[in-house]
Amino acid sequence: MIVLGIDPGLATLGWGVVEAEGDRYRMVQYGAITTAAGQPMPQRLRAIYGGINQLMDIYAPDEVAFEELFFSKNVTTGMAVSAARGVALLAAAQRTEELYEYTPMQIKQAVTGQGRADKHQVQMMVRMLLRMEENAKPDDAADALAVALTHIHSHRARDMFRIK
Amino acid sequence: MIVLGIDPGLATLGWGVVEAEGDRYRMVQYGAITTAAGQPMPQRLRAIYGGINQLMDIYAPDEVAFEELFFSKNVTTGMAVSAARGVALLAAAQRTEELYEYTPMQIKQAVTGQGRADKHQVQMMVRMLLRMEENAKPDDAADALAVALTHIHSHRARDMFRIK
Repeated sequence: MIVLGIDPGLATLGWGVVEAEGDRYRMVQYGAITTAAGQPMPQRLRAIYGGINQLMDIYAPDEVAFEELFFSKNVTTGMAVSAARGVALLAAAQRTEELYEYTPMQIKQAVTGQGRADKHQVQMMVRMLLRMEENAKPDDAADALAVALTHIHSHRARDMFRIK
Repeated sequence: MIVLGIDPGLATLGWGVVEAEGDRYRMVQYGAITTAAGQPMPQRLRAIYGGINQLMDIYAPDEVAFEELFFSKNVTTGMAVSAARGVALLAAAQRTEELYEYTPMQIKQAVTGQGRADKHQVQMMVRMLLRMEENAKPDDAADALAVALTHIHSHRARDMFRIK
């Protein structure tokens, strides 16, 4: 099974592909879709939609796992990132109904065993679990690999995390 | 010139098509794309994307004008509606670069002459300006016709309202 993890964002959307078979898994590839702040919003959304479509073409993931967005303060930023997430979700939904979502705390818990782990601990555990020589860069790609791993680890309860 | 007005929403997205030639304009059609609250979010986004694509096919608008979203309180609703707006903006952006946005106050001002007009006054003015026998229903469709009219009225300053 191929899992695509996505850390949604407008300026930087992290992605990571992990292949799982039974209890074994391996890192396939990771990266980021970036859009420049100076570009018009419609172009940025098209770039994200096109980028996710390319990932769906290349890796043909069976399941896609998103990191849940959380905003407490900046509503304007929240709306822009929500639009980016909407477009990424649309592109994924056009290929598979297997769409899942995990909170940052669930991801930290699944990857490090601690819901309050810091970014550095998450990155290090992602590197170790996936037997990578270096931390994935940018951080958003490491986060995307972390959400893919979280999804793989949650296979017994995954219907709880299906996007509704 | 054909203008498509859009009042973005997740449960109900209002749309209205107005044709303008010089100082004259006429209502072409209006309606709403609706998605059921019980449906999964990915399906709702696909329905909105498909619906806007159909409108772009049928009416081939030269320019598309959106009512700007504004949220002060409910962040969760704001995120869901922002995702719907993002998907609608993507579908429109795949056909034209002529994308514009107006605030609710600009729309009220343009249609009624008063930035603080109420919903009823806006609906009545839309009906009179477009020589319609009845108010457009649902309200979201009347709002979409109002944003199309606002765009037509702002032709001298329209670059100010281009979506960036």
